[in-house]
Amino acid sequence: MKYGIVIFPSKPVQDEINSYRKRYDPHYALIPPHLTLKEAFEADDAKIAELITELKHIANDMEPFSLNINKVSTFAPVTNTIYLKVNPRQELFDMAEKMQTGKFPKNQTYSYVPHITLAQKLSEDEHSDVYGSLRMKDIQFEDTIDRFHLVYQLDNDIWTVYESFVFGKEFV
Amino acid sequence: MKYGIVIFPSKPVQDEINSYRKRYDPHYALIPPHLTLKEAFEADDAKIAELITELKHIANDMEPFSLNINKVSTFAPVTNTIYLKVNPRQELFDMAEKMQTGKFPKNQTYSYVPHITLAQKLSEDEHSDVYGSLRMKDIQFEDTIDRFHLVYQLDNDIWTVYESFVFGKEFV
Repeated sequence: MKYGIVIFPSKPVQDEINSYRKRYDPHYALIPPHLTLKEAFEADDAKIAELITELKHIANDMEPFSLNINKVSTFAPVTNTIYLKVNPRQELFDMAEKMQTGKFPKNQTYSYVPHITLAQKLSEDEHSDVYGSLRMKDIQFEDTIDRFHLVYQLDNDIWTVYESFVFGKEFV
Repeated sequence: MKYGIVIFPSKPVQDEINSYRKRYDPHYALIPPHLTLKEAFEADDAKIAELITELKHIANDMEPFSLNINKVSTFAPVTNTIYLKVNPRQELFDMAEKMQTGKFPKNQTYSYVPHITLAQKLSEDEHSDVYGSLRMKDIQFEDTIDRFHLVYQLDNDIWTVYESFVFGKEFV
């Protein structure tokens, strides 16, 4: 089964980001707006049970932190993906790094860039047009991050959440 | 913000159910296949924080249980919704009942029928055709249920998972 680990921003942020994704991101209907911590990886039931224990430890050691977004950028010429640049909070790099070590499969191809995708799989001309128009917009968000989600992909390519991991020790 | 509480069956079950929903359920792209425990309700941030504590208690008191599905049924003539009938496990009724009492808003209009929707918003003729064809199929599932999810709805009507609640006390 194919899993991934993502952060969903709050509803108001997701709603505004979707207003751009709707036109420019073919993954719009497959997963809500998200910041990827760990790209898609394969795991069987035994492996994922093991990783869930690790993810609980990672989340337990975290505290909620704020995220700032204030710039549209692009991965071109590597890919034609246009994204919201997320201010490089150390917490994001630490979590992403932990999810590449120990029991986790190493599957990070490029160096980790915290981002939220706005547009992808555009032709070169579309990319120029869309990037030109989006970078002129005053897109600014501040959001509080207090959890991440383990998601898996269905046969129709839509992602479902398997489990959420809320930051900090929980005493119920 | 509009919230709901649902159970997502396992991936193989979701995949097969989606093969029917794809053709007959206009909500196909809005939420993965699910069994509703509590229909959509409004809550602000303070209220939902309160309810999350309640949901943790409900989940803590549960143990994983198996679910059997072996019949296609319809809510007609009340609505033209065609669904998979879920064997009436007491656990489901207990959870749904708890989510209508105490701090939870009461929002259950009909008596609770555990089900997974396959088709909805059909015309009367479509309903007859689709129900006639689906009820002939040998749809059988057994699945283990060990969690439910609190979901919220974005402006584009797509549902995002806010938090998962795994059954049983957790010691990390």
